[in-house]
Amino acid sequence: MAELTIGIVQYACGADVDANLQKTMQGIRTTASKGARLVVLQELHRSLYFCQQENTDEFDLAETIPGPTTDQLGALAKELGVVIVASLFERRAAGLYHNTAVVLESDGSIAGIYRKMHIPDDPGYYEKFYFTPGDLGFKPIQTSVGKLGVLVCWDQWFPEGARLMAMAGADMLIYPTAIGWHPDDEAAEQQRQRDAWITIQRSHAVANGLPVISVNRIGHEADPGEGPGALFWGSSFVAGPQGEILWQADTQTETFAVAQIDLDRSEAVRRIWPYLRDRRIDHYSDLTKLYRD
Amino acid sequence: MAELTIGIVQYACGADVDANLQKTMQGIRTTASKGARLVVLQELHRSLYFCQQENTDEFDLAETIPGPTTDQLGALAKELGVVIVASLFERRAAGLYHNTAVVLESDGSIAGIYRKMHIPDDPGYYEKFYFTPGDLGFKPIQTSVGKLGVLVCWDQWFPEGARLMAMAGADMLIYPTAIGWHPDDEAAEQQRQRDAWITIQRSHAVANGLPVISVNRIGHEADPGEGPGALFWGSSFVAGPQGEILWQADTQTETFAVAQIDLDRSEAVRRIWPYLRDRRIDHYSDLTKLYRD
Repeated sequence: MAELTIGIVQYACGADVDANLQKTMQGIRTTASKGARLVVLQELHRSLYFCQQENTDEFDLAETIPGPTTDQLGALAKELGVVIVASLFERRAAGLYHNTAVVLESDGSIAGIYRKMHIPDDPGYYEKFYFTPGDLGFKPIQTSVGKLGVLVCWDQWFPEGARLMAMAGADMLIYPTAIGWHPDDEAAEQQRQRDAWITIQRSHAVANGLPVISVNRIGHEADPGEGPGALFWGSSFVAGPQGEILWQADTQTETFAVAQIDLDRSEAVRRIWPYLRDRRIDHYSDLTKLYRD
Repeated sequence: MAELTIGIVQYACGADVDANLQKTMQGIRTTASKGARLVVLQELHRSLYFCQQENTDEFDLAETIPGPTTDQLGALAKELGVVIVASLFERRAAGLYHNTAVVLESDGSIAGIYRKMHIPDDPGYYEKFYFTPGDLGFKPIQTSVGKLGVLVCWDQWFPEGARLMAMAGADMLIYPTAIGWHPDDEAAEQQRQRDAWITIQRSHAVANGLPVISVNRIGHEADPGEGPGALFWGSSFVAGPQGEILWQADTQTETFAVAQIDLDRSEAVRRIWPYLRDRRIDHYSDLTKLYRD
């Protein structure tokens, strides 16, 4: 058994970005003290989810990579000897910003970055205003704990991203996330949405024979405008390579927890479910179209 | 609401192929009498699941399309005014056989066929011996009840097939299936497998905003050789376009049942979850490779 202990840091962000970073670092310390060697943070953990409105002032939240947050998280990664998957609002140039995941190696260096490829845009989630779609493609990041297939939030709804990471040798799929309910939606709709979110990510584990780690924030965040705000549903989870839930947080509790994955399971599962053997690549070329019309 | 009533025919096959066909036709009549306008049959419903061993004599089970079974099912489709998705062992030529789904229109004609594209092969499921992988690609079949994205069993594990059907305008995804447990597997493994099977198919609903209909057989079928046979797990189900389970059979009961889907829901769901808008086709070209090495 090649066991790896994963740390999950799920909490409610506030308006004070420094306080959020302190909370993040507290979560990393706590999970490291429980044995975590890889710690996964929620999406855009440094701030409130500012995409509830389109406001040019919010670009002030962005920072370079490397930059002040990667410096602090890198130092902590080195101190604790852990790998950290962080999620930052990246300022690449004036007028060019990305929603970027940064992987910090346990020696404090930056192992690599992933720029969110699929960008959502719907009422309360105006991400296309803030983030240019990533230009780095779907490339896993090599670390001392494995090759990490890091994707971000909206990517989780696209089987293509997960598949391309698996095909490039990812040992696991990782989704920092910020997703919540519209507080006015009825309970049945809220349940369908959360269930769909869990189901689609578990399916990437199944289709690719890989563990999946998904970390989401909690808490209600008010809309700076007229809307009802967003109620982030937490439910961070870890699934094994058959899509089986190995560990899951609830919808509203601050959670600095660890879960185990067994990296040897993928080999065994892919022997009984050898989907990579049977893909019909001779008939897949239309996947590079938007629609077959 | 554009409601469509689906008939599901789940039962245990026996050695007598004529008796199986009578059972199938009884199931079609029963579900039609309950209001079904589209009836979906389980995979290879005309016979026992003969792929438990490699035996050239089993090719005697194959038939042409059109052929005796499509004649009988076509006549029944016309009599009852229903569309039928059947699944047959197709003899295309000497030495060339397919695992083929046939869609019979309510006027008795053949609306179209789909030849199973992804062919499994593992102990007890020696399908690569019997079935040449389909050469028709992933094309939905137009009928009077909608454009049917018909796929077959092993296809259900591949997000690519579901996506290509959705991109070609399918109104729903349909999976005739024959899948079961290895009787010697421990209960936890059996549960993981069935859960994964449900999860991956629900995920195609989610990813594509389409209803999914999956029909599986039940019953234990002895292995003609030395093996413990296969215990088919039934669990036929219908899911809505958010992946929500609308109806599900159990693992062991003969079930001639109906379930409703609302074809207008896909429009509403795709407006709130517009994944087709955001696919990164500029970075998907490697999906036509087997592996990215």
